Amino acid sequence: MKKVEIIGLDGIPDVKPGDDVAALIEGALKALGLLLEDGDILVVSQKVVSKAEGQIVRAVDVRPSPLARRLSQDIDKTPEHMEVILRNTARIVRMDRRRGIFIMATPHGFVCANAGVDRSNVGKEEVYTALPEDPDGTADAIRRRLEKSFSVRIAVVVSDTFGRPWRLGQTDVALGISGMSPFRDYRGLVDPYGYELKSTMVAVVDEVAAAAELVKGKLDGVPVTLVRGVVFEVARGSSRDLVRRMEEDLFL
Amino acid sequence: MKKVEIIGLDGIPDVKPGDDVAALIEGALKALGLLLEDGDILVVSQKVVSKAEGQIVRAVDVRPSPLARRLSQDIDKTPEHMEVILRNTARIVRMDRRRGIFIMATPHGFVCANAGVDRSNVGKEEVYTALPEDPDGTADAIRRRLEKSFSVRIAVVVSDTFGRPWRLGQTDVALGISGMSPFRDYRGLVDPYGYELKSTMVAVVDEVAAAAELVKGKLDGVPVTLVRGVVFEVARGSSRDLVRRMEEDLFL
Repeated sequence: MKKVEIIGLDGIPDVKPGDDVAALIEGALKALGLLLEDGDILVVSQKVVSKAEGQIVRAVDVRPSPLARRLSQDIDKTPEHMEVILRNTARIVRMDRRRGIFIMATPHGFVCANAGVDRSNVGKEEVYTALPEDPDGTADAIRRRLEKSFSVRIAVVVSDTFGRPWRLGQTDVALGISGMSPFRDYRGLVDPYGYELKSTMVAVVDEVAAAAELVKGKLDGVPVTLVRGVVFEVARGSSRDLVRRMEEDLFL
Repeated sequence: MKKVEIIGLDGIPDVKPGDDVAALIEGALKALGLLLEDGDILVVSQKVVSKAEGQIVRAVDVRPSPLARRLSQDIDKTPEHMEVILRNTARIVRMDRRRGIFIMATPHGFVCANAGVDRSNVGKEEVYTALPEDPDGTADAIRRRLEKSFSVRIAVVVSDTFGRPWRLGQTDVALGISGMSPFRDYRGLVDPYGYELKSTMVAVVDEVAAAAELVKGKLDGVPVTLVRGVVFEVARGSSRDLVRRMEEDLFL
């Protein structure tokens, strides 16, 4: 009986710029009496990484461009928010100005609403949080540190919540990967009942991110999840491999 | 410490038209010594449902239309396969004939490659399996039957493997739902750190389908998964609620 467990790590405090995320995870694991095992996957929410790495801009420090002012007119976004979105945008994929929807490609190649820029109010101040610059690198640093501390081989995934076309609602996907291949590759194989699996390459890392979200919630302050029991291919891993090439994408 | 368990149900045999899927699941659970509990979610692969419901067409019984013949020219699909795809298509969303890619909207409103029609070789014969006609109804019938047998309240999801734009690889999503809302709705809420969750409506049922795939694999003959520990809103549920309305979709 194959079994996967998804465990939310309680006890990780609000993260501030400069915080050591790996140390916070290690502390939370030890406080919970959890030891990492070979093959474990740790899924870390983007917001925690972005904050620790200082990907935060205060509205008062932003000078909106004329384009940001124009795009934000009559919609539920400030010119400052729009400006930070545009600074994190490599390409506008689609926009519906009237509904305030901006689907952007980020410099990493991810396609998501608002280029992944979140808005929050810290006290009375409005601040924006952008995606990490190098989420693979972040995942890698966390993995190396925890592998050393616990003497294990694991994988680390940095995840974020993205919408998708055609289907309502968002799901968590992988932004950064270290220690595993993003895919389980069945191409060229046939299943036990004779079905072709020719084009089946499962994005197992995105399924891991989605599974991790099931215990995270958004209001619970559980930004890190331990996923145990997933069979994956050990590899360096990179979320760049998940990005479909523009010329092969029918929806760009 | 919040925890979700995903358990693959071994021992479900190859399903044939007319088979009683709920009875097979009940048998597998009992053979494994597993009792269903309130709040459990059972995730059943589409292929099992389609086969049991006889959504199978033999190539020899298909007379391809001129359009099916034309579209299948010079690509790795037979005219018969193309014909069955077209019969299950409500609308061609995108096609790239040269690469043999056909992204179709099904009558249910799902958007997926080949209208969800899979091809297999049963012995020397080529057969095609289409999506269930009413996957919500299938999920509902399985749920009612198992709730009665085990005296519990559960949810049932029928899942399939779909690709998506922008990101390589496929993930499992929900085709049919009974007993739970597809969403966890955070709109209008603020997280513990002041972040707006205005447009956050998590497609929890798709995350459950993705999580279930992690123990299923494609070659393991494990078409049913028990997901335990997910917090969800009890509701009738329907995958129709997951389908974004055409006029609100920027990628149709």
